Amino acid sequence: MPHTVAILGTGLIGASLGLALGTADPETAPLGRCRVIGYDGSSQQLRIARGRLAIDDEAKTAAEAVKEADIVVLATPVQTLPALMREIAPHLRYKALVTDVCSTKTSVLQWAKEFLPSTVSFVGGHPMAGREKVGAEAAELDLFKGAVYCLCPPVNATPEATNLATAFVETIGAKPYYIDPEEHDIYVAGISHLPFLLAAAQTEVVTRSPSWREMQMIAASGFRDLTRLASGDPVMHRDICSTNRSAIKHWVNESIRVLVEMRTALEDDKMDDLQHMFEHAKTMRDQWLTLPQNQRPGEGDQLADAEIGTSISQRLFGNPAALLRGGKKK
Amino acid sequence: MPHTVAILGTGLIGASLGLALGTADPETAPLGRCRVIGYDGSSQQLRIARGRLAIDDEAKTAAEAVKEADIVVLATPVQTLPALMREIAPHLRYKALVTDVCSTKTSVLQWAKEFLPSTVSFVGGHPMAGREKVGAEAAELDLFKGAVYCLCPPVNATPEATNLATAFVETIGAKPYYIDPEEHDIYVAGISHLPFLLAAAQTEVVTRSPSWREMQMIAASGFRDLTRLASGDPVMHRDICSTNRSAIKHWVNESIRVLVEMRTALEDDKMDDLQHMFEHAKTMRDQWLTLPQNQRPGEGDQLADAEIGTSISQRLFGNPAALLRGGKKK
Repeated sequence: MPHTVAILGTGLIGASLGLALGTADPETAPLGRCRVIGYDGSSQQLRIARGRLAIDDEAKTAAEAVKEADIVVLATPVQTLPALMREIAPHLRYKALVTDVCSTKTSVLQWAKEFLPSTVSFVGGHPMAGREKVGAEAAELDLFKGAVYCLCPPVNATPEATNLATAFVETIGAKPYYIDPEEHDIYVAGISHLPFLLAAAQTEVVTRSPSWREMQMIAASGFRDLTRLASGDPVMHRDICSTNRSAIKHWVNESIRVLVEMRTALEDDKMDDLQHMFEHAKTMRDQWLTLPQNQRPGEGDQLADAEIGTSISQRLFGNPAALLRGGKKK
Repeated sequence: MPHTVAILGTGLIGASLGLALGTADPETAPLGRCRVIGYDGSSQQLRIARGRLAIDDEAKTAAEAVKEADIVVLATPVQTLPALMREIAPHLRYKALVTDVCSTKTSVLQWAKEFLPSTVSFVGGHPMAGREKVGAEAAELDLFKGAVYCLCPPVNATPEATNLATAFVETIGAKPYYIDPEEHDIYVAGISHLPFLLAAAQTEVVTRSPSWREMQMIAASGFRDLTRLASGDPVMHRDICSTNRSAIKHWVNESIRVLVEMRTALEDDKMDDLQHMFEHAKTMRDQWLTLPQNQRPGEGDQLADAEIGTSISQRLFGNPAALLRGGKKK
């Protein structure tokens, strides 16, 4: 009996999940061949997902989509989850696994506890992959290939639910990484939400200037890369900020502190202080690039960077990749 | 009589210039076929540049390199320029054009006035292209293709010198952009030096945290792209800060101001304020991407995006690749 997966929300992430499930090798993928039922509030998004074969069947409502599913993936914006959970609650199968893909987890686990019936299991999920584009038309079948996929089971999760969530993540080619929801939220605020805010800040700083008319003519790849995330969906990022306020505020504060250090060094002409900071940042980033999950070829310059990073760190420290391996991974 | 170009410093930029000169179409390039003489303080860099055919001949000293050159390109770090100018001054040909590639221009023009003889012309130059990698081994023949190339002639520049600098820029496939040196420095501080500082700040903020050991396991493409510039050469960036202190300080201050705005919005739960800021940033960046010079595929995510865009659009709409072709492809 093949697994039936309902994907609610067939945008970038939902449709990419569907493509990954549909193209997984049924011989080796833990879930085997799945039947994927899609639902989206936008009939256009649903049509594109269907046209790209990201889903096998379209459902007319969320309730219809979930009623035969043993895995239900909530792939809609975080703010919509409470209402969506309430809507599907009466229609979920006994012992179904419900999971989500939102980039904050504490609130989501609270909502699941509040709104989902005790006859189903919820395991929070967050794939560490994405694009600044939106919609099913931007979906990619290998978006999750080799990516870390955070899983946050509640304290009372059953082994069956946890195993099924793990099988789902492995079937789409990602690497399961179990993490406490509060830890997840503070870490993700630093390595994902803060980068978006800094990209938006860089864009705001220069585009608010009356000189932008001329500056825009000479802005090049450095500006383009640093601001890439600022082209992301403003509403999604507003909602992320709203559900992860205090963690994000912590990292914004830390950023202000580092920028004030830089300003002081510039004012006092302490160029050696700046150089030391730049050296530390370069060393740490180059080390990070040598981690196994950063070694895969991806969009853009990643592979090339990883190669250089490796060679530099190897020259400096031997082979640090071995030291960094084996973090908290089950 | 072909032009003779001396490139002093055959690192990333110098060797890329040599490759671009050597592969320019002699029928259509304004300078025609050039003879390129290279010199570098590192014999290894010089050997790599020669091995990659970025230069035709190796010189043993800077003085030897320039003595027959009608165009001299100073492609060494900004801090080395005063000494280098003094060294070559007695050996420069009558009416030679001297130019540089540094990312700050006010100091460089002052040094040229002070250290170069009045028998030669200096026109400051700054190609708006680069990579976070260093050395002749990272050189690319199409690094400057379609890129804006700032030119800062001094007020007393001769038309011959300005025309020759323009021909040089057009020969390597770049677009000359004339700009006042003070304006150049403040603009470049905003769109090039500040992005580096924000990349370094993001890296410092998270890697100084005791949680970095776990955060590094889930950091993904957002962190990678936002911090790419932090893998750049620390000494080069120290020198840039040192020669463009007040302009950079201005933009660091503006960044602190915007981050404080964000922090206040988070503290006061003013999510609409944040959303408006994010929308403005997205609109401005997306507009910037539509400028003609940003339409070409480049390093980083743009090339990958263009390719992915092609495959998706092909599936959806037939073959639009013809529309996208004609850019830079490695």
